[in-house]
Amino acid sequence: RILRFFYLYIYDWPQPSFMSKTLEELNIGTYDNLHIIEENSTVIEALSYFVKHRVSALPVVDKNKKLVNIYSKFDIIGLVPDKSYRNLNMTINEALIYRKERFEAVAKCYKHELLSICIERIIRAEVHRLVIVDNDEYVIGILSLSDLLDFLILRPTKSKSTEEVS
Amino acid sequence: RILRFFYLYIYDWPQPSFMSKTLEELNIGTYDNLHIIEENSTVIEALSYFVKHRVSALPVVDKNKKLVNIYSKFDIIGLVPDKSYRNLNMTINEALIYRKERFEAVAKCYKHELLSICIERIIRAEVHRLVIVDNDEYVIGILSLSDLLDFLILRPTKSKSTEEVS
Ligand SMILES: Nc1ncnc2c1ncn2[C@@H]1O[C@H](COP(=O)(O)O)[C@@H](O)[C@H]1O
Ligand SMILES: Nc1ncnc2c1ncn2[C@@H]1O[C@H](COP(=O)(O)O)[C@@H](O)[C@H]1O
Repeated sequence: RILRFFYLYIYDWPQPSFMSKTLEELNIGTYDNLHIIEENSTVIEALSYFVKHRVSALPVVDKNKKLVNIYSKFDIIGLVPDKSYRNLNMTINEALIYRKERFEAVAKCYKHELLSICIERIIRAEVHRLVIVDNDEYVIGILSLSDLLDFLILRPTKSKSTEEVS
Repeated sequence: RILRFFYLYIYDWPQPSFMSKTLEELNIGTYDNLHIIEENSTVIEALSYFVKHRVSALPVVDKNKKLVNIYSKFDIIGLVPDKSYRNLNMTINEALIYRKERFEAVAKCYKHELLSICIERIIRAEVHRLVIVDNDEYVIGILSLSDLLDFLILRPTKSKSTEEVS
């Protein structure tokens, strides 16, 4: 039974040892096949990424490829009542003006930050993912809620016997 | 080119005719293979659903199968700093007490409501999906941002020539 499996392995999750390690040490997050969008791309391009690749958000970068924002499915739906949907070939930059909520800096983190810090940041910002950047603000990965749950469930098996997995 | 395809078909999206139709008329949303959780189930069970079925939220029902709440990946991550994660076999009901944000009624809708109303509700509640219930509050479906974007992109082809799709 799958539930029994989970029970066995995450009973003492998350182990303090994980929480005080860095993303890099834990190798947590998505670093390959990132879907990123340039701020001068159009909303239609974002839409095509969302539908084709089933991602829920795209880091937005400037022409130097540095992180400036994030664009999500929710942002596109937010265009509808403003009637600005007539112009889906506007740029991401223009579309971000229609974002209802007060503008806040995109929630991000560095590979050398502790897992505990990243989790706290996610909760405080009430976001579903952090964009992982290097020291020059280049996007190198995504740390999403899914990555965290997968990690917290699956990794403990490594530090215990894996024979019980059936 | 996929972008050209999108451009052709959603240029005047969303067509007013869609917006003033009901979910039922448009057949929009997910109605099959719903993943739902009972309020007395454990957090571990929710976790297993999230990781196994890749859903991001589960409608929570009482023992009469009526909708009472929704439980998301974000809620589980929210348990971590409270140290309540030690007890992942607590029930969903108990776990919901740890929800950081002020409690608000779960965002829901009916099949006979207009698409425009549902979209407005999603934006106002700042949620990623509405739970679709029948008149007795039984859960019958989910209307998520993904469903909306898929619909808004793919459906217009029906009312136009589909020959241009290549
Ligand atoms: N823009 C993106 N490009 C590549 N992978 C992503 C992107 N956004 C999320 N992911 C990954 O897709 C998986 C599901 O993420 P989510 O849909 O946010 O739960 C996770 O492994 C994320 O790290
Ligand atoms: N609890 C659930 N059970 C079944 N389908 C779901 C559930 N939550 C979301 N979906 C569907 O899964 C797809 C992706 O949804 P989302 O991850 O919310 O973008 C959409 O078609 C949703 O309607």
